[in-house]
Amino acid sequence: MAKRKIRVVQYGVGPIGAAVVRLMRTKNALELAGAIDMDPAKAGKDLGELVGAEDAPWGIQVYADAAQALGQGVDLVVHCTSSYLKEVAGQLFECIQAGCCVVSTCEELAYPFRKYPEISAKLDAEAKEWGVAVVGTGVNPGFIMDKLVLTAAAAAQRVDSARVVRQVDASQRREPLQKKIGAGTDPDEFRSQVAAGTIKHHGLPESVAMVADGLGYELDDIIERVEPVIAAERVVTEYVTVEAGQVAGVQQIARGIEDGQDRIHMELKMFVGAGSSIDTIELRGVPNLSLTVPGGTHGDLATAAIAVNAIPVLLDANAGLRTSRDLPMCYFPETALP
Amino acid sequence: MAKRKIRVVQYGVGPIGAAVVRLMRTKNALELAGAIDMDPAKAGKDLGELVGAEDAPWGIQVYADAAQALGQGVDLVVHCTSSYLKEVAGQLFECIQAGCCVVSTCEELAYPFRKYPEISAKLDAEAKEWGVAVVGTGVNPGFIMDKLVLTAAAAAQRVDSARVVRQVDASQRREPLQKKIGAGTDPDEFRSQVAAGTIKHHGLPESVAMVADGLGYELDDIIERVEPVIAAERVVTEYVTVEAGQVAGVQQIARGIEDGQDRIHMELKMFVGAGSSIDTIELRGVPNLSLTVPGGTHGDLATAAIAVNAIPVLLDANAGLRTSRDLPMCYFPETALP
Repeated sequence: MAKRKIRVVQYGVGPIGAAVVRLMRTKNALELAGAIDMDPAKAGKDLGELVGAEDAPWGIQVYADAAQALGQGVDLVVHCTSSYLKEVAGQLFECIQAGCCVVSTCEELAYPFRKYPEISAKLDAEAKEWGVAVVGTGVNPGFIMDKLVLTAAAAAQRVDSARVVRQVDASQRREPLQKKIGAGTDPDEFRSQVAAGTIKHHGLPESVAMVADGLGYELDDIIERVEPVIAAERVVTEYVTVEAGQVAGVQQIARGIEDGQDRIHMELKMFVGAGSSIDTIELRGVPNLSLTVPGGTHGDLATAAIAVNAIPVLLDANAGLRTSRDLPMCYFPETALP
Repeated sequence: MAKRKIRVVQYGVGPIGAAVVRLMRTKNALELAGAIDMDPAKAGKDLGELVGAEDAPWGIQVYADAAQALGQGVDLVVHCTSSYLKEVAGQLFECIQAGCCVVSTCEELAYPFRKYPEISAKLDAEAKEWGVAVVGTGVNPGFIMDKLVLTAAAAAQRVDSARVVRQVDASQRREPLQKKIGAGTDPDEFRSQVAAGTIKHHGLPESVAMVADGLGYELDDIIERVEPVIAAERVVTEYVTVEAGQVAGVQQIARGIEDGQDRIHMELKMFVGAGSSIDTIELRGVPNLSLTVPGGTHGDLATAAIAVNAIPVLLDANAGLRTSRDLPMCYFPETALP
């Protein structure tokens, strides 16, 4: 790490971006240099006030114009604007060309090589040209269903197949999440929302691809499907009432197939009334290995944590487009020296 | 990785070394160039015959003289001779000065900075001088009680304390392990064996130190104690009969203390009649995180796996003395290209 504080800028101050900002503020080694958000309701505001900090105002500005925020000797940008790599590629290039490392929560950037080989190659080349490292990460994709799977596989002599199931009880989660998973809709409405692309978690195929490459599988195909979880009885949350027979949430499955066999199975179930959250990883091989996270990993808290914890690791990494697979993901102590 | 096969030498062909050799033989990217063992009963033999390979002989020799094995364009040595860093430091320097990277299962090398600051500094300097990387790793220390803890911590916004309990049911394990944990002895005999240092797992303080540094704790002290686990009823295994009141095995606890508080608690229980094996990691903080490995991680299989899986990662690492904390521990596919 540098001997002065690491100068960071937050790009995108939505719910995840705000959580990232609040967490970055607790790290002694970081200096928040500014933030970027196109939203006219946010630009021009004080960042501390925007993220609801108790010690606001901070005297740190939110800019609508990225160039203004990046033109200040910035070391690293934490980028949280969209799930779609095509939408954010321009933003990423702008950060790279300002000489900044980038940690992004863009799901499609977590392992973009299969879906976007050209953008991946360009990002990698441009990052190397500017001597900076770029990574897409978060709890999922980026950690629970891929990095943790490959880390567990370090204890295996042979891995024949991998199965990961992440069950999230959405009952206690925020309202947008309950809406996003279709809780309270009818099955027909759910299916039309799936068809329209509004009900969909991004990142499962990216996790499958990362795990496949890490385990040396040569997949012929990655197949993904999205199904409703139907409530067996009435479920009432703070935000929604789901009658029996209505949709309680979503079950999304991505399978990695080699020679007609499922070698990788990833399943994400997010629904109200689940009763509990749990992440389960099962590796079949020598020896068989299971790993569970009872209670699961809280999506919003953990994604902010993983993005911020990746900062010192990324600054130490080789220039180029990295993934959490390459990086020794760990904790960023608040007391760490700059 | 190199474009030719990676030339590896096995240093020490005991039970773990033999398991490492058999596993290395399955990896397409590796070429076994030889082995080293001082034991006159092993030196001069064919390595394949020595490790009980079905396709022996391999035409690969076991040398008593390390220089002979290392003088053949070797890229990396897997070193499995002793738990004590002082005993193996000379062997490690010899490998480094032959221009070889080293993966060692020496427990005290897993995180040697606190107990052996001078040897650590010399190893680091010499490895940098020769442009090679050196790491001590294995399942414990090196993985379950440290690397996996720090990896889980990547999902945490704050970690106030860490508790790791590894329970191993020794009933199905090999005879030397059952003897090593004192199964079947009387409590007095157990205590005298503990005093003599013959009943002791090596590596708990190393794991505590790695986790403390990774979490940013400034420990005042690491305290370790070894206690017998007393059998409540008779336990019969293939190798030993333990009467009620006798010793079933060992419980070893290491605590990392800061300002009078236990911030890290690591507990290793290995005993016959445990009924099940399980590893449990609990991080208190924001959020609380638990991670369990139901069934545990088989010590012998996993240590060989972790050592071999570390090979490509170490060859990609910066020169110097590394630890599993720094490395993106993962799986080494058998189909990986050289």
